[in-house]
Amino acid sequence: MSINTGFIGPGIMGYPMAINLIKGGHSLHAFARRAEALQRLTAAGATGCASPAEVAAHADIIFTIVSDTPDVEAVLFGEHGVVHGARPGSVVVDMSTISPTATKTFAARLATHGIEMLDAPVSGGETGAINATLSIMVGGKPEVFERVKPLFECMGKNIVHVGDSGAGQVAKACNQIVVAVTIEAVAEALTFARRNGADPAKVRAALMGGFAGSKIMEVHGQRILDNDFKPGFKVGLHQKDMRIVMETAHQLGVALPAAALVTQHLNALMGSGDADLDSAAVVKVLERMSGKGND
Amino acid sequence: MSINTGFIGPGIMGYPMAINLIKGGHSLHAFARRAEALQRLTAAGATGCASPAEVAAHADIIFTIVSDTPDVEAVLFGEHGVVHGARPGSVVVDMSTISPTATKTFAARLATHGIEMLDAPVSGGETGAINATLSIMVGGKPEVFERVKPLFECMGKNIVHVGDSGAGQVAKACNQIVVAVTIEAVAEALTFARRNGADPAKVRAALMGGFAGSKIMEVHGQRILDNDFKPGFKVGLHQKDMRIVMETAHQLGVALPAAALVTQHLNALMGSGDADLDSAAVVKVLERMSGKGND
Repeated sequence: MSINTGFIGPGIMGYPMAINLIKGGHSLHAFARRAEALQRLTAAGATGCASPAEVAAHADIIFTIVSDTPDVEAVLFGEHGVVHGARPGSVVVDMSTISPTATKTFAARLATHGIEMLDAPVSGGETGAINATLSIMVGGKPEVFERVKPLFECMGKNIVHVGDSGAGQVAKACNQIVVAVTIEAVAEALTFARRNGADPAKVRAALMGGFAGSKIMEVHGQRILDNDFKPGFKVGLHQKDMRIVMETAHQLGVALPAAALVTQHLNALMGSGDADLDSAAVVKVLERMSGKGND
Repeated sequence: MSINTGFIGPGIMGYPMAINLIKGGHSLHAFARRAEALQRLTAAGATGCASPAEVAAHADIIFTIVSDTPDVEAVLFGEHGVVHGARPGSVVVDMSTISPTATKTFAARLATHGIEMLDAPVSGGETGAINATLSIMVGGKPEVFERVKPLFECMGKNIVHVGDSGAGQVAKACNQIVVAVTIEAVAEALTFARRNGADPAKVRAALMGGFAGSKIMEVHGQRILDNDFKPGFKVGLHQKDMRIVMETAHQLGVALPAAALVTQHLNALMGSGDADLDSAAVVKVLERMSGKGND
């Protein structure tokens, strides 16, 4: 069944996701801040719109994937925002990574207009977006999740309804905590190995099969060994996500000591001009502190 | 080919390892501080000895697995220690988890007596010891490693020669760093989920398939969800291993900020009487700090 979809924010992640909706046989009205981004998508079969409100006026389900909490707020509630065009009964699906608490507020504000909202942040990067293998973590009403599920299946593989509004963003925040702190774990271990004169590649091999084994040890461990920090997932984006984590922890009064520590290492990389490196570059902070050792 | 082996320290780990050497068809002379421990092993076919020196006098390859660095030093060089009985050309294989730098010193001291030494700490716990599926991380000369390899194969599965003397202990230290810091990562994420009112079990399920997935998320994550801290690997032992890590970092002048932080959480558990819990109990430190949240 073809669904009238809307798409706001066809960037590095959003563009291939929108393409996968079109490939799935769905009509798609789109808005992008940059004219080139919109043109690329209309060339692929989307209908271009002049504003988020215009997208919303044509769509039953409106996807948004933009950079940060204020961007989502502007797209939904700003001048010519979604709320000014969307019909009651339509659904906003925000796939950006933003604040869980702000998400709950946005959902409540949309509800006063009769508009449903899901939060559905993703992980899996550009490759996952292109290959439609994204992990999608969803918060919101179960019946709304079921309604949108066929569209999620055009874009991802591991699609989990985590809970009520905001729960998708909570899961994504947890994902970023675990990834950041596990990268730090691997970076400290391989630095310790090097500084002891051991071969970090052999240490990694010895550790992979046991309790120290992880996807991060496999992928980011190899990046550290190769001294190759082509992203992957950029420091600048990870730092932004950790800001959301730490702001939420601040609001809730929950101590996350290791997440806070690794956020400082990401901050350090921002200061050293390494925003565009993969976040495995936290090893550079350790090496700058105490030296690299022989390899 | 039957080899004359010696075994010093048939404890929780050592006993099933010694049994697996006997099952492998090797003769085994043994010493234990506790009479019951020795009796249990002689009942299984070992020959009991009155001292490490006596074990060494009967064996070509002498295994030691005791608690800590000073225990290894006492067993090797103390009154009636291995060095007073061992023949030139024999091999000491220390499977304890101890200091990498002390290990190098012990190997050098044994070398002056014509005795070879491997460091070969293990991971995989009592279950791995019983099932002969231990990971064994080995440091020392390659030709000595090859000589002992058939005996390692009686006790473990993933057997890696990491490098020169001490490299096995370095790898084990790296293992303990990664395990400790990854447990902290998982504990912080699941605490964050709970405090946000999300279902931590669903969050864990959403994260397992992606970059946040790890053996620790699988096993220790489940222990945290179940609030079941039956070991597994005890806080008291993990704290001792992290003391070795932090002492070595101190000696080398290498900063390990996250490992240091988690060591403090293990210290806190020692203070709260939780030494015998699994080290997944670091989540308790976080909960004591900021509350558990609804589940």
